[in-house]
Amino acid sequence: MIPTLNDIYQAGNRIHPYIHRTPVLTCTSLNRKVGAQVFLKCENMQKVGAFKFRGACNAVFSLSKAEASRGVTTHSSGNHAQAIALAARMRGIPAYIVMPDNASEVKKATVAGYGGMITFCEPTLEARESTQKQVIRETGAVAIHPYNDYRIIAGQGTAAIELLQEVPDLDIILAPVGGGGLLSGTAIAATSLSPGIRVIGTEPLMADDAYRSLKAGKIIPSVNPQTIADGLRTSLGELTFPIIQQRVEKILTVSEAKIISAMKYIWERAKIIIEPSSAVAVGALWEHNSDFAGLRVGIILSGGNVDLERLPWSQKT
Amino acid sequence: MIPTLNDIYQAGNRIHPYIHRTPVLTCTSLNRKVGAQVFLKCENMQKVGAFKFRGACNAVFSLSKAEASRGVTTHSSGNHAQAIALAARMRGIPAYIVMPDNASEVKKATVAGYGGMITFCEPTLEARESTQKQVIRETGAVAIHPYNDYRIIAGQGTAAIELLQEVPDLDIILAPVGGGGLLSGTAIAATSLSPGIRVIGTEPLMADDAYRSLKAGKIIPSVNPQTIADGLRTSLGELTFPIIQQRVEKILTVSEAKIISAMKYIWERAKIIIEPSSAVAVGALWEHNSDFAGLRVGIILSGGNVDLERLPWSQKT
Repeated sequence: MIPTLNDIYQAGNRIHPYIHRTPVLTCTSLNRKVGAQVFLKCENMQKVGAFKFRGACNAVFSLSKAEASRGVTTHSSGNHAQAIALAARMRGIPAYIVMPDNASEVKKATVAGYGGMITFCEPTLEARESTQKQVIRETGAVAIHPYNDYRIIAGQGTAAIELLQEVPDLDIILAPVGGGGLLSGTAIAATSLSPGIRVIGTEPLMADDAYRSLKAGKIIPSVNPQTIADGLRTSLGELTFPIIQQRVEKILTVSEAKIISAMKYIWERAKIIIEPSSAVAVGALWEHNSDFAGLRVGIILSGGNVDLERLPWSQKT
Repeated sequence: MIPTLNDIYQAGNRIHPYIHRTPVLTCTSLNRKVGAQVFLKCENMQKVGAFKFRGACNAVFSLSKAEASRGVTTHSSGNHAQAIALAARMRGIPAYIVMPDNASEVKKATVAGYGGMITFCEPTLEARESTQKQVIRETGAVAIHPYNDYRIIAGQGTAAIELLQEVPDLDIILAPVGGGGLLSGTAIAATSLSPGIRVIGTEPLMADDAYRSLKAGKIIPSVNPQTIADGLRTSLGELTFPIIQQRVEKILTVSEAKIISAMKYIWERAKIIIEPSSAVAVGALWEHNSDFAGLRVGIILSGGNVDLERLPWSQKT
């Protein structure tokens, strides 16, 4: 069943003891630059450094005792893997993590640091899924998909509820879209709480499967997209797509150059670390500026996990 | 007259319309690492990216109309210069800024961006002072010293008042010490508000003039110190030293390696951008860990102005 606002409230109550209530920050120079009032919901400061911990926590703590005892498993490009590993540790159960071998060193080390047991695979969806099946055969662990799971979707929606509790009169909420867990959860929460609100997805132009899928009316997966926003390389899922079709106004795409400059701008002016996937939503403010003039815009800053030894503006030189 | 708590409250009222009330953040992994409850007062998110805006704003808005009409001038290694330039623009008066020619490009560009008129000089205190005298002869501007000024000291103390309003039961407040404006203002505010509180200064080992001055009972200036914490290369002033002698328990020194690793740790785990001068206070938690075990520690994170193209951990490779 598609989560309702009530399901998202219940998820919020379930995960409340484990998550951070993240701050909502503003940045005067950003407001001046875009001609809008922007409110940054700092999920980069969430545990494991990303909103993903909300959904993972909701899924892990929703399991029955019998299910949980066998452990959990997932395949992920990084933040979801960290999130599952930490949530499992908090519940005291094992986490078996299948990760693509091109995931960043920081992410691999952090998953291991949270006690996750990692199995590496090729960086394709097929390899991830077949490797995970093998893990499940060996351990009996419960699979928790990074986004195509209603418990995950409900958990991700809790960030929008917190944002709207703090800033009730938003005109628009922007969220990045990869697999669509955050965007669909945000859309259910926001449009249920504030019927007039507009929810807009933001996506790298180089991984614009959500944009194309909404236009086509069916899921059109990305094929090995090369965007720097590594959290957004995944394609929409069967569960997230219909929610997005129903509740999201549109998808705005953002060029790689704008993603990088938005990321650097937020580091320099708002003084917070955001990862490229978060910067996509900020970059949309610039690339599609006329959509936002004079409005009150909430942005879910999805995460802040960045390899500080390999920054995009240093690599350019 | 040495500022009283009341002077600091008055400064707070005076600058309230112009400054940010900055957030106080916590970081679970930092708390676990140091075995203390740490509260980070984020002056890196203050306007111009540093606490310096508080003092500058108090000084600029304390001027009589006649004084203000001639404009203001200062010599500074960066953040104070930006602060004076912006405060002057807010009051609608000119700011003449004397800067050492080795100040970072980011800081130069930002001062100019705030409308400050820059005169460059050699990076010595003597050159700064003689150049400023010349500017005053030419313009009649009022000099506002970066720290040796009671209006500045009172303004800087407002950060500690906000921190203690939010977290009243701190055992210790840590602040970095360069010229001593922040530390002396913090000490007046904190020891007046919470008589049992301990105020401790933190300083780079490579620029340990405050440590040596307190031991000697007289000001012993640093001579061309080479620390990465460029905001702390200045030496104590005649007005700040007696306040620190009276109200600060001690000065802890921190090695360059600990400053850099503390800075990177806060970026990675707390997801906020702090400059090396702020990292000195965090590094003290590690280098002098036994001082803090089990206590509630407030840290004034002094600023977040960093040249993102030249990070200390990239330069090492």
